[in-house]
Amino acid sequence: MKAVFIGAGNVATHLALALQNKGVTISQIFSRTSSNAQVLAEKLGISFTSEINELDKSADIYIYAIKDGALRHLISKIALPKALHVHTAGSISLRVFEGYAERCGVIYPLQTFSKNKMVDFSQIPICIEANSPEVEQELLEIAHLLTKKTYILNSEQRKKLHLSAVFACNFTNHMYAIAADLVESAGLPFEILQPLIAETADKIKTMSPRDAQTGPAVRFDEETITKHLSMLKEKAELLQIYKDLSLNIHQKHKKK
Amino acid sequence: MKAVFIGAGNVATHLALALQNKGVTISQIFSRTSSNAQVLAEKLGISFTSEINELDKSADIYIYAIKDGALRHLISKIALPKALHVHTAGSISLRVFEGYAERCGVIYPLQTFSKNKMVDFSQIPICIEANSPEVEQELLEIAHLLTKKTYILNSEQRKKLHLSAVFACNFTNHMYAIAADLVESAGLPFEILQPLIAETADKIKTMSPRDAQTGPAVRFDEETITKHLSMLKEKAELLQIYKDLSLNIHQKHKKK
Repeated sequence: MKAVFIGAGNVATHLALALQNKGVTISQIFSRTSSNAQVLAEKLGISFTSEINELDKSADIYIYAIKDGALRHLISKIALPKALHVHTAGSISLRVFEGYAERCGVIYPLQTFSKNKMVDFSQIPICIEANSPEVEQELLEIAHLLTKKTYILNSEQRKKLHLSAVFACNFTNHMYAIAADLVESAGLPFEILQPLIAETADKIKTMSPRDAQTGPAVRFDEETITKHLSMLKEKAELLQIYKDLSLNIHQKHKKK
Repeated sequence: MKAVFIGAGNVATHLALALQNKGVTISQIFSRTSSNAQVLAEKLGISFTSEINELDKSADIYIYAIKDGALRHLISKIALPKALHVHTAGSISLRVFEGYAERCGVIYPLQTFSKNKMVDFSQIPICIEANSPEVEQELLEIAHLLTKKTYILNSEQRKKLHLSAVFACNFTNHMYAIAADLVESAGLPFEILQPLIAETADKIKTMSPRDAQTGPAVRFDEETITKHLSMLKEKAELLQIYKDLSLNIHQKHKKK
């Protein structure tokens, strides 16, 4: 099986390297951003292009790992209806391929990818959607090269999963970023928070997040909350975030 | 050295068990909530009381691990000015002991404690404050029984650290709780998110949270953000949280 990757960002980089490592032939990287394409192509030891008319048209599968906004346009430009077309986006319906691909699907790896951080694909859930049972089988075989954790999800489920991942990952990471700024303002190193962050993530392997909750909001400790709000009074956005989250925690636990 | 614990909640439970395990004699548990006191006393194989007049007055150190709101009142009631008095609260100044204790300090373990989840104290930073160099040395010796990660912080630093811990732990855990509700609404198990949560926490051991950020907000992917907001339109609180956090992430990264 020969694959072409459309895109050279974080997802494309990790997925292409992992698939090549499992014996899939990646023949070419296409990216509008030539410099990104070159970097990934060099890692894979293959060719790249940023010109649509130089695209390798002989591949069995075209894997799109690009920004959602660019996906529709590129699908219409590539226009190879006999090949298998697959995207990797959480929030884009399979219907994006309608009219452009007879065989199409989605391979959505549920993970946060940064270029300089290796990940273990065997631990990553991969969510599959396909426009036929045959394509589904084909995509499952590809996914199983990488992980045992495969899920068959429709576009609606995947969209909800992606939204939940924004909370579980991006917003969580932003909590770390805010915390980092706050400890640094106290003259302390960020590393002081790392055991706390590790334990917070570890707890929910054996307890529900609801049962794992601690701190002033769940205790409705008004004295501490008032102190914290007063410390944030010069930082309007953080003040609002602190208020909204404390109230939301309190409401969730009141309903017990 | 003989210690009495005032309080029988999560912090008292973990700290008392860990200290006893390192050879510190805990003589008694005092808690207004008799049932909690009994549970902890049984774990330690010692006596308990919920009556202030039955308090063991012969201890060397009184360790207060109780709700912030109750601390002031109990300090004034216990009134044993010759003993060493120590609290464990992030947001309470050392001055709370003024007039009630000649020798006082703070032992603040920076961790999230739930009764049914064991923790490894050797990984926990313990923050110390004391009203004299002698007490500081004494408290450092106690802390070093448990961990090498000790920090000398004043009350102002500790208060900022506690605020940052609310973001790094309590608010982070609430992001997990929201994500759990969302995946369950898609008919998916919470466990699908666990590798993502683990990797998000793991990344910031080697990257700053700022560099680790991914997702629609940092990419300013308006199409995805719009979809997500529309999925949350029936949930006003979550909609507000999503908007505020996405905007805050975007602003933070714009300033790069």
